[in-house]
Amino acid sequence: MPPRNVVVAQSGGPTCVINNSLRGIIEACRSHPSAFGKVYGGRFGIEGVLKEELIDLSATSAEEIALLRTSPAAGSIGTCRYKLKKGQDQDFERVVDVFKAHDVGTFFYIGGNDSQDTAHKVSVLARDSGLDLVAVGVPKTIDNDLGDAEFRLLDHSPGYGSVARYYAHYVRQANEENAGSCPADPVLVIQAMGRKIGFIPAAARLADPERKLPIQIYLTESGLSLEQLGENVVRQLESDGRCIVVVSEGFDVGDVGAIRDNFGHIQFGASQQSVAQIVVNYLNTLKFPVPGKARGQVPGTDQRNAIAYASVTDLDEAYGVGRHAVEVARKHGNGWMATILRDRTGSGYNVHYDKAPLEQVANSERFFPKSWIAPSRIDVTDDFVEYARPLIGEDWVSVPTVAGLPRFAKIAQVFAPKKLPAYVPQTARAKG
Amino acid sequence: MPPRNVVVAQSGGPTCVINNSLRGIIEACRSHPSAFGKVYGGRFGIEGVLKEELIDLSATSAEEIALLRTSPAAGSIGTCRYKLKKGQDQDFERVVDVFKAHDVGTFFYIGGNDSQDTAHKVSVLARDSGLDLVAVGVPKTIDNDLGDAEFRLLDHSPGYGSVARYYAHYVRQANEENAGSCPADPVLVIQAMGRKIGFIPAAARLADPERKLPIQIYLTESGLSLEQLGENVVRQLESDGRCIVVVSEGFDVGDVGAIRDNFGHIQFGASQQSVAQIVVNYLNTLKFPVPGKARGQVPGTDQRNAIAYASVTDLDEAYGVGRHAVEVARKHGNGWMATILRDRTGSGYNVHYDKAPLEQVANSERFFPKSWIAPSRIDVTDDFVEYARPLIGEDWVSVPTVAGLPRFAKIAQVFAPKKLPAYVPQTARAKG
Repeated sequence: MPPRNVVVAQSGGPTCVINNSLRGIIEACRSHPSAFGKVYGGRFGIEGVLKEELIDLSATSAEEIALLRTSPAAGSIGTCRYKLKKGQDQDFERVVDVFKAHDVGTFFYIGGNDSQDTAHKVSVLARDSGLDLVAVGVPKTIDNDLGDAEFRLLDHSPGYGSVARYYAHYVRQANEENAGSCPADPVLVIQAMGRKIGFIPAAARLADPERKLPIQIYLTESGLSLEQLGENVVRQLESDGRCIVVVSEGFDVGDVGAIRDNFGHIQFGASQQSVAQIVVNYLNTLKFPVPGKARGQVPGTDQRNAIAYASVTDLDEAYGVGRHAVEVARKHGNGWMATILRDRTGSGYNVHYDKAPLEQVANSERFFPKSWIAPSRIDVTDDFVEYARPLIGEDWVSVPTVAGLPRFAKIAQVFAPKKLPAYVPQTARAKG
Repeated sequence: MPPRNVVVAQSGGPTCVINNSLRGIIEACRSHPSAFGKVYGGRFGIEGVLKEELIDLSATSAEEIALLRTSPAAGSIGTCRYKLKKGQDQDFERVVDVFKAHDVGTFFYIGGNDSQDTAHKVSVLARDSGLDLVAVGVPKTIDNDLGDAEFRLLDHSPGYGSVARYYAHYVRQANEENAGSCPADPVLVIQAMGRKIGFIPAAARLADPERKLPIQIYLTESGLSLEQLGENVVRQLESDGRCIVVVSEGFDVGDVGAIRDNFGHIQFGASQQSVAQIVVNYLNTLKFPVPGKARGQVPGTDQRNAIAYASVTDLDEAYGVGRHAVEVARKHGNGWMATILRDRTGSGYNVHYDKAPLEQVANSERFFPKSWIAPSRIDVTDDFVEYARPLIGEDWVSVPTVAGLPRFAKIAQVFAPKKLPAYVPQTARAKG
């Protein structure tokens, strides 16, 4: 009997290193030809499975797969924000049909909380319906909010180390700018991702672990108001003549963001303005003790795809946990997520790969530890620095270029021939 | 007679490579100890001269000066937006007093249009007042709007090549993001600097010189409206399912930016919202032919200080033109700006350093050539690509790191002892 096939898919917002988990899975499967048949990539995550759009990755050479190491984001096979929810029975049935039609024996799902929840549901479905399928999750999220509060199921998610390195460098560079340009521009506001969970803005502390620079960090969890932010900034200007403000996109700006049109309707609410802009506008209504104005910037998706800043540690771990997922599938079967755990003995930073039950992961929550927020509420503690510092690695990643441009992997857009009727979205069926 | 001293100062918004011109000047002056005495850095540009805040650069080691190569922005000696204007006679007199008090024989001013105008005024002042001073300008601007329309006085300004490389990489990476995430986020709006002159947004074309990607570029000079932008984006979504919009911060969004409060007063005008946000908000009022929304980001000052993207060509030229300025001062004396000219014979990209009269530079203007705007008005031509492509160089710059963070030069904050009464700002005197 020929080995059964594999589907791998990505889900949620991408990271700098997500393609390394994909690479690890592809390369590990290829190194076990008796255990795994063809490896298909779901085009745009689970949506590609539902639509039976399966990229035949055997059409892409080993050299091109190797280039996934330094190819950021999900241009390779795509990602989605589609979530398989309880009650969407027809979607689950469709997944089963597609897997059966293409003789899929293993399903790897690379993603964050929602994705691991989907992987868990698929694994349960397989078990309950007698489908001979092994579903294994692979962690991925820049937010680092996957896993448990005690960091025992998972120390950190691939993707976080690179966004942390991005902020360490970004803020360090911003400091050169702010220190040199403060007569005109004394306040620089930088908006960080991570709507509810503060691991990303917290990483700004890695730019200045010795706390020599005038940096203020506003996590969503700080519980501070826009007015308190303003007071803090003015105080920093009094002492240093300049200030760098790193603010979470989820920071609660209160009612200032709600702007009404001439009929009294809220026209551009907070959701239609960036937090950075609201903070800048507010600061510029205050009386500064120095000349000059506040200005702001929004790194946006750049923070999760700027490959030049990728942490080599993160790249390697994303690859390692991808490869490990294949081992988990081979040796332990259905219902696991591959994990990264930090060695708790020995000196220095070392990790090992392990596994956690998908059921446990899907029902876990991780917040930014309250004890890592400094008493000032505008900083994080040394315990956070100790945790996060090793994740950003040491040296720069080497990204191959051609004619001065990065050379990213090109996945051949060769699809498995379709065998089923076209997918009808669950919502369309519900209406019909 | 001991050699007379030197003052070097930077002005205007910084660049990734501005410190290389500083480095070139310092190192060239140090290599001619019989011609040049101490090299002082004006703290925050001409403001440091006025305030007699002169950093004694002899207190900084050669090793540290060498690190200026990969130290972005102006954290080294600072920059300013202060401009010496006609009529500010007391400011000019103060400059003369400070130069006399510190036996300054040469003044190098690194900057863009306004700065070269200041350098010119100082050079004329020296000539007219019998002050034995050589004033030489060194070009610097990410906007590339310094020099003449025919590129004969100056081919390009140091700083532009690096911001162009930033956009080439930025948009290439954004394309990986957009291609992979388009089911949820089909439109990514990126706001580029360069208020009036489109060289910076134009550089987005370098990400895709073969025009294979769904990129639209909106220069301020395009003359297009927000509504036309919307139509173009919808059309791109119809054909490609996704679109990357690069828009100048100076793009005319019309009246959409003017938002009124419930008394009818304009509350947050266009100046208090980013162009990117206005474009995103507008696009999200349109009916897209695909699911998902537009999102936007504002790179801000990162585009002029992200050293990882610095063009090695630009780094080297910024250094070369700094060194050359010292030669110009030695051999030709007062009233010149050092220049970079492209060799018009031979194959490949080569430059040589030359000089132009400051008077001519101060009275020149460069716009983005109309002939380089494509007929579609949302692209630039191959002539632009041919001009700009060599400026971004080939390989990555190597930035030294310590513990995973960039190691930037630390200029010893040792100041020349003050010899004059405190500076009284011109405005304060005018009032008094």
